[in-house]
Parts: sequence; structure tokens; C-alpha cells
Amino acid sequence: MISRAEQKTFVGAEQLANDVTACLEALFPSREGPLPLHEPEFNEQAEAKVVECIRSTFVSSVGAFVSEFEEKLAHICGVAHAVAMVNGTAALEVALRVAGVEPNTEVLLPSLTFVATPNAVSHLNAVPHFVDVNEQTLGIDPEELRRHLDQIGELKAGQLFNRKTGRIISAIVPVHVFGHPAAMDELLDAAGAFGVAVVEDAAEALGSRYKGRHCATLGRLGAISFNGNKIITTGGGGAVVTDDAGLAATARHLSTTAKLPHAWAFAHDMVGYNYRMPNINAALGVSQLEELPDRVAKKRRLAAAYINQFSGHPDLRILCESEHAMSNYWLNTLILEPHATDSRDVILQYLNSAGFMARPVWQPMHTLDIYADAPRASLPHTEALAERLINLPSSAKLAECLS
Amino acid sequence: MISRAEQKTFVGAEQLANDVTACLEALFPSREGPLPLHEPEFNEQAEAKVVECIRSTFVSSVGAFVSEFEEKLAHICGVAHAVAMVNGTAALEVALRVAGVEPNTEVLLPSLTFVATPNAVSHLNAVPHFVDVNEQTLGIDPEELRRHLDQIGELKAGQLFNRKTGRIISAIVPVHVFGHPAAMDELLDAAGAFGVAVVEDAAEALGSRYKGRHCATLGRLGAISFNGNKIITTGGGGAVVTDDAGLAATARHLSTTAKLPHAWAFAHDMVGYNYRMPNINAALGVSQLEELPDRVAKKRRLAAAYINQFSGHPDLRILCESEHAMSNYWLNTLILEPHATDSRDVILQYLNSAGFMARPVWQPMHTLDIYADAPRASLPHTEALAERLINLPSSAKLAECLS
Repeated sequence: MISRAEQKTFVGAEQLANDVTACLEALFPSREGPLPLHEPEFNEQAEAKVVECIRSTFVSSVGAFVSEFEEKLAHICGVAHAVAMVNGTAALEVALRVAGVEPNTEVLLPSLTFVATPNAVSHLNAVPHFVDVNEQTLGIDPEELRRHLDQIGELKAGQLFNRKTGRIISAIVPVHVFGHPAAMDELLDAAGAFGVAVVEDAAEALGSRYKGRHCATLGRLGAISFNGNKIITTGGGGAVVTDDAGLAATARHLSTTAKLPHAWAFAHDMVGYNYRMPNINAALGVSQLEELPDRVAKKRRLAAAYINQFSGHPDLRILCESEHAMSNYWLNTLILEPHATDSRDVILQYLNSAGFMARPVWQPMHTLDIYADAPRASLPHTEALAERLINLPSSAKLAECLS
Repeated sequence: MISRAEQKTFVGAEQLANDVTACLEALFPSREGPLPLHEPEFNEQAEAKVVECIRSTFVSSVGAFVSEFEEKLAHICGVAHAVAMVNGTAALEVALRVAGVEPNTEVLLPSLTFVATPNAVSHLNAVPHFVDVNEQTLGIDPEELRRHLDQIGELKAGQLFNRKTGRIISAIVPVHVFGHPAAMDELLDAAGAFGVAVVEDAAEALGSRYKGRHCATLGRLGAISFNGNKIITTGGGGAVVTDDAGLAATARHLSTTAKLPHAWAFAHDMVGYNYRMPNINAALGVSQLEELPDRVAKKRRLAAAYINQFSGHPDLRILCESEHAMSNYWLNTLILEPHATDSRDVILQYLNSAGFMARPVWQPMHTLDIYADAPRASLPHTEALAERLINLPSSAKLAECLS
């Protein structure tokens, strides 16, 4: 690490890249082979549960592991209902539909997110509407949101309209980026003032809390992901969580082809989905949920080590949880100071060459051709941050390899 | 069994229900407990493969079992490409999109199908357009199809329009109901004459062939399901199969969020899906595919026994494969003669009470409120058949319990 005293002017991209790489070498002196960005881990219980599931023959969407997984997940989140889905994208799509997002309405969401967030909106034939984020949380900036809605929003009979497009604005989706809780109190206040439903994209935030409450449970509904790269995994999987029994029942109904209960007859009262998590994936998930507290603790130790390693650096810092947040630190994130922005790709090359898998943040959604025409606020922070972020190896087990 | 000689006039619903139940008791004299409609089965290899998958830590959508499953499936189907998906509904949705089904176009399909068929169309924001089926295959009737298209269709610049709605008719979806191949030659001819792409819903037809060619490979693309109730299962799963390398590549790309290949950067060039089959489900599938030939053979033995047991019955028969078809007999199907239509529910009650899980065919799609406004042909055979079909217990292993 280069101290502020030694470093009055920017040393240049290559020296910085060398320095960052050396910092990681120093953190993980005993590593063997390359460090992936995020590796899944399984205990023996995982194998036992999955074998038990196969022997029961109930491997599909009817099964006891799905119920057990949902109960355990709801308990962890401190919420009344969890509905297990085939993945996080499906969970967000169903959560949005259940929250009342109709075709041809607009859904507010950050542009700095994985493509699944706007895709879930598009799959409902609704329109993503991008708003700006801030550097403290990487989530939607509440003040910028209010400013934008004051400018383009129009309340008619309690319903918010985009006066530029004439469309209803039906929901807002705070995304808890890399596990860092967005500024939920301020976002809930703003959404309430404008009469817009809040659906959280907590795909990356299992184990993260805001003022003690679990992410995904602060809005009307939330969506969580259990993809292979997440803090725990079911192979592919997701869940909708909510305290509202009616919304949970509708989410469950919609995800199982909206079939009406009957011993043998087939009738369906909504255009539903085939989105329920299979029992074999839930069996894996039941064992994974047991490991969550330990994994959050390890990931927080790892984050503390990263933060310490880069503390006081003149050209960059590690993103810390904000005042009211308890982050799962899903992916540790290096933020380049604005003057070092142009170093990003050199740092990425050095790190990946040295066996530290690192990657930039997603290309902002409004810069993709597929979402270039979507309505949006001005996005200065999104555009600047998109060039300044680097994710670092973040598997929980790295906490055991620290120097 | 009651012979035709003994039985000149209809005996009434209760006596018929008693007779059918007695026929099943006679077929399975040594059964222990109720017989489900269709049970999954797993060998020891299934457990070994899934444990191997967990130990590799690659349980999610990147993994060797997905590739192995796709290769084995393509080989079985005698086709160049298979793309594994999260379920059959997703596979059909992607196949339709890849075949060129655009929003607000119409897709021809039978009303006598599971709700997933029209739902896949609806999820693309396209419109199901229901056509009639026949009693020989339970699939789309080619003559009725031509008659209907002559009436409502209008070819303009090589593109078929529905002159009543003004919408393009973009595809036709033959469904191989209960594993019985539809009359593909005649349907392909008709589709060709009207310039409409053919996408097969072969959800139920893995192992079924038409003139020696595997179902799902006769049109441009086909969709197969591996749900828990199918001939083999991956928990939840499906696949798109096709001989067209370009279509297969697009299906694969669309199902993995349409992400462009890059070591670390995120760019997406289509509004894609999170629809790839997870590796852990594919591990199960690899072991299941090994069992397919044996399972098809057993299911055909079981079907032969059912056919023989009810042969010559004056009030009903078992659906047989048609001349050019080799059916997997996924679900054995009892067809009531028209005069015995009203007996169906009594037979269902008797069979289910006696521990033989039986069910009627799906309520026709055009009679559901959600599809009541969809365009359609007149559907006399669909409406009549919907009241006359009963599925009987059909697990492959029942072939070993036959009297």
C-alpha cells in the first residue's frame, strides 16, 4: 500500500495496477491457484439431503424440501411468507406482477444493475425507467429520485404518471447492489409520497440488513436469488418474500400455472408461469441455509481485511456498508477515485493475469442498445461510477486464507 | 371385460365404472397401495451423478453435465442441437421466439393441451389461436386446419394474415398429446402451403417417433419437458431441439441473458431470459437418459396390456398409436364412446376411490376465462373429446406388475 504522504500525484495506471495486485498478494499469501470471484461451497449435509430427495422420488415442484426451504428462509428474513422460485429473475417478475405492475406501465429502477432487473420488467411487457444512484450505497439516490419525480411525475387520482410518456409509474425497484442495502427509509418515504409500490431486488442481499430488518422485507415484496454465484445456492433458484399473506398466495398460485385446486381437474384462472423451485434444488438449499450465518460472518471478516488493506489509499477505497446497513458483502468492491478512473482496465488486466478474478460493474442498462430508448433521469453518478468499480474475489472461505 | 355380444345397450355409468375398475384390478393383481398416474424412478447412478456434481461445486448453469445432457439428448433425438432449459414452458417460449413469433402475432395451437402451450405464446405477448384436433392422434387435425385457414387466412407477400383480426399468423404448434405423435406430414404440408413456421410442443413425447423420426425434430424447432411427471425427469427441466445451428445458438444465447462473450465485461444484445438448466438438474438428467430405452419398452408393454384388456369393449377403448407413429405412451388414455360420455366423472370417482389415480384431459383452453377471447376455429372434436378422455396409471414400472 502506498501512503498518502508518499503519493501526492497520481502514479499512473500501471503502477497503481501493480500496487493493487501486490495488496491482494499480501492478503492471500498462501493461496493455491487462481481465486474466483465467488465460489459455491457445500457440506456433507448437502449431499445427504439431495440423496434423500432422490430416494423420496419427489424431485419436482411438489415436495417437502420446498416447504422446508421456504419456512427456513422466511424465518431468516423475519417475514411471514417465502415462495421459492426457479431463479431470481422469475421471483422479481412474479413479485412485480403481484405488486400490480401492468403492461405498458413504467417501473423505476437503477441503471447500475444486472440485466435481470430490467428484463423482469420487460417480461411483464412493462417499461424500465432508469434513475440515478449514489456512491454511498450504489443504490437509488433518494434525493435524485425525488427531484426527478418532481420534474416528470404527475399525480392524478392517487396514481403517478410520467407526464412525458403519459404512462402510469407502477412500482420502484431498489436494488441492493453487491449486498449493500439501499437507503430504504428515504426511498420508502419518496415512494409513499408519490404513491408507488416498492419491490426490492435483493438478489444479492441474502443476509444483509437495514436498521436490523432483512433486505427484501422492507417494501411490499422482495426477490432473492440463489444462483451459483450467490452467498448460498440452490443451483438455480430464487424466492419472493413478503409479510402479506394475500400477495404470497397469489405469487405461489401464479408460479404454479395458476391451477385451481382439484383432485384431478385442470382449470387455471390466470395466465401463470412454470416458475416453482424443484424439490431437488430446494434440498440443496435447505443445507445451504444452515451455513448462512457462518458465511455472512466470514464474508464480513474478509471485507474488513480488504477495507483495512486499502485504507488511506489516495487512489481508491473499498466500499463500506453505510450507517444503517449491515451488508453481507456479497462482492467486495473497489472504488477508484475519479482521478484514477482511467486505470480500471489496466487493474482488471493485472489482477486477472495474476490469478485474482476481478471484474468491472455491469455496463449501465441505459447504455445497452436494448434499453437505449427507455425513459430515464439524468444519470451522472451512474455513468461515473460505472467506470470506477472493480469487484474482487469474495468467497466466504477466503476469510480462512487471510494473512 | 364385457364382450360386445353381452352388451347391446349401455349399462349405465355405475356399472361401467365398476367394470373399468375391475379391469384395472385384474391387470394389477399384486399391487400394493394406490397407483399414481406417473411416478418418477431413479437408479443408483442418479445419486452418484448428483453427488459428483455437488463435489465439483459446479451446480449452476455452467457445468459439464449440462453439455453432456445436451449431447446425449441430441443423439437420442437424432438431431444436431439440444439446448437445455429450466422447464418445458421456457423451452417452448424460447423456441417460438427463435422461430420468429413477434408480439401481437397469432400462433395456431390446439385447445386440447396443457395450459403451458398457450401460456408460452402469451409470455411472448403473442396471441394463441385455437384449432381443432382429431380422435386418431388427439393432435391438430390437418384437414380441419386447412379448412379453417382457407376461411380466415389471407396470404400477403408470403405472410399469412388472419383476415378477421388483421394480425400475422406467425407459427403453428402441433402438440404430441400424451406422447402420441400428431399427423406431422399433413401438418407440415399445410403449414408450408400457408407459409407458417412449425414449432413442436413435444413436452410429453420424449421417446416417441413419427415415421422413424423423433418427435420435436420434424418442425423448425421442438420443445421437450423433463418435469417430474414425464417419462424421465430432471426435477424441473426442458430442452429446445433443432437441426439448425443458428437457431440453436440464438436459443442458447437468449436463455443465458443474451450476454455477449467476454472474460469479465457485461453486455447483452437482446432482452434475454434466465432459462438455462442448472448443472445439478442436468446431472440427474444424464442418469435418466440412460434409462430411456428401457422405459419406452416397458411403457409400450404396459400400453399393450391396457389395449388388450379393454379390446372389443362396447363403451370405450384405449388410444392406440396411429399408423405412422411409435408412441412412448406417456399416459395411457381411455376414450369413452360418445354414448358413454356422461359416465366419465363416475368412472373417475370409482377409479380414484379404488386407488387407481385417474384424471380427465385438461379443460380445453378456449373454455378457460383467460383464453375465452382468443381467436379460434370451430372446435367440435375438441369439445366432444374433452368429455370423453380418462388417463390411467402409466408409470413404466407398472409393466412389471402386470398379471
